[in-house]
Amino acid sequence: MTSSTNVSCFHEARRVAIFGGTHGNEMSGVTLVNLWIQNGKEIQRKGVETKPFITNPRAVEKCTRYVDTDLNRAFTTENLSAPSGDDLPYEVQRAQQINEIFGPKGSPEAYDVIFDLHNTTSNMGCTLILESSKDYFNLQMMHYIKNAIAPDSCPVLLTEHPLLKYSTSRSVAKHPIGLEVGPQPQGVLRSNIFESMRVVLKHALDFIELFNKGLEFPPCTVDVFRVSEKMDYPRDTNGNIIAMVHPNLQDCDWEPLNPGDPMFQTFDGTTIRYEGAGTVYPTFINEAAYYEKQQAFVTTRRETLAAGAIKKT
Amino acid sequence: MTSSTNVSCFHEARRVAIFGGTHGNEMSGVTLVNLWIQNGKEIQRKGVETKPFITNPRAVEKCTRYVDTDLNRAFTTENLSAPSGDDLPYEVQRAQQINEIFGPKGSPEAYDVIFDLHNTTSNMGCTLILESSKDYFNLQMMHYIKNAIAPDSCPVLLTEHPLLKYSTSRSVAKHPIGLEVGPQPQGVLRSNIFESMRVVLKHALDFIELFNKGLEFPPCTVDVFRVSEKMDYPRDTNGNIIAMVHPNLQDCDWEPLNPGDPMFQTFDGTTIRYEGAGTVYPTFINEAAYYEKQQAFVTTRRETLAAGAIKKT
Ligand SMILES: [Zn+2]
Ligand SMILES: [Zn+2]
Repeated sequence: MTSSTNVSCFHEARRVAIFGGTHGNEMSGVTLVNLWIQNGKEIQRKGVETKPFITNPRAVEKCTRYVDTDLNRAFTTENLSAPSGDDLPYEVQRAQQINEIFGPKGSPEAYDVIFDLHNTTSNMGCTLILESSKDYFNLQMMHYIKNAIAPDSCPVLLTEHPLLKYSTSRSVAKHPIGLEVGPQPQGVLRSNIFESMRVVLKHALDFIELFNKGLEFPPCTVDVFRVSEKMDYPRDTNGNIIAMVHPNLQDCDWEPLNPGDPMFQTFDGTTIRYEGAGTVYPTFINEAAYYEKQQAFVTTRRETLAAGAIKKT
Repeated sequence: MTSSTNVSCFHEARRVAIFGGTHGNEMSGVTLVNLWIQNGKEIQRKGVETKPFITNPRAVEKCTRYVDTDLNRAFTTENLSAPSGDDLPYEVQRAQQINEIFGPKGSPEAYDVIFDLHNTTSNMGCTLILESSKDYFNLQMMHYIKNAIAPDSCPVLLTEHPLLKYSTSRSVAKHPIGLEVGPQPQGVLRSNIFESMRVVLKHALDFIELFNKGLEFPPCTVDVFRVSEKMDYPRDTNGNIIAMVHPNLQDCDWEPLNPGDPMFQTFDGTTIRYEGAGTVYPTFINEAAYYEKQQAFVTTRRETLAAGAIKKT
């Protein structure tokens, strides 16, 4: 990226991948990617090579989240530089292969854009996940998508955080974009969720085509929700969960949670209230896959990011 | 059961079991049963011994539906009479143990009542599952529960069918009752679903207490949905699914589906319509666990069953 007269210049985004099945039981991405592997017409755009790819085929076959370990946390420097071999967990082997095909991560040879398609059991709607607040290309793309699907909404979750590091599958690309659509149970394909994901992908690819054609995108702002804190379920001294997400909070992803608001309900009916310092916006509320990560939801805070103008080099 | 002056007499229902975790990732039953194992006060009733029991502990530990095979189809005569041994699938071993503790199935020594607690990803609300249209005890109980929770509804699914045999865990008891509550994703505990299940159990146990006290229940009728036909997803010649449940049908469990109504939507947007002879009432619509059973939903037909008066012997 180079700057001149306040316009940031990026290379054409010629190599684009669409990942499905990073979690093998999230059926919208698995189904879309499999469809596009059979017939890619829908994702073809002038000047763009778009590669649909199933990242965790064994997990997809078993319709399970993963086989040995979460692929979407496996793209650490340590894993990617480990001596390869059959003794490594399946997903670590797979991360190395993906890094070879689409990376190497952090190198000039890496793919320009990777979309990674996920579903959630939470009521998150059609959420875009952004890894860096400085990535003007992605911010411009998200701005474009938000406008294109309005009046439907499309929240942006910014996962940039001083402590929480995710090492996602998509992080191999120069511009990684997560798409998290819900609510949809694991192992289920719902037509409404499937169609939402498909529409967002369409607009994203349209943006890339326009960018590659040389269109300049003027400065813009994007409202995002920045990840703040992981909240666990209340537990007893043995680590057993003793409360559920409160009915007032369940399904209220992206809505304000204020100090004093109900947060959990114990099995004997006691309400546990949020006692943070100010308003937060919870998301990933009661996500099935996060019980094992000791996470009932994450709090976020609203922020407006500014993106400078961009065009191709 | 003996009859006199049109009142059917049953023995007291002294031994009652509540099964959770027959499917290890259906969290309402798992959680309730574990709570009641710790403290059974809530399920104690005068003259009733109620035993809460986790039927598939290994599946619960792994938060998976089953380990080797579906426990809830494992209670066949063949399985229950097979020579026991470590080489049998885990769930078959487990079925034999359960049959020993709560059965033997079909014998006078069997438990009087078993409630088996399930969750579904389908929008089935709080459904009672009845295995026999002739079981006046269960019909009277369901009549009692329906009245007790009105104006909330509590559909009864009758699984009696000339061809489809289920061999459920609860079938070990003289009076087997399934409770199927949804929508709830696998691996998730939702407070609303948890509370619905708890309330139905409360009324069911109240009924048993009243029955055991000697109360006579007069003749009644119960509206049920009788299982008719399994409907698979549309597939290509390789067996791959090529369509989703239509948005007009998704979440519409127990609502009428008429000839000509949309049923599936192919991935390229074509509507596939229901072409049966008359109105049916679909249920288990888009249940996660039934993809592997090649079942998109089951059709049912409405029927009104009559139950004679009952009292204890
Ligand atoms: Zn995922
Ligand atoms: Zn079940």
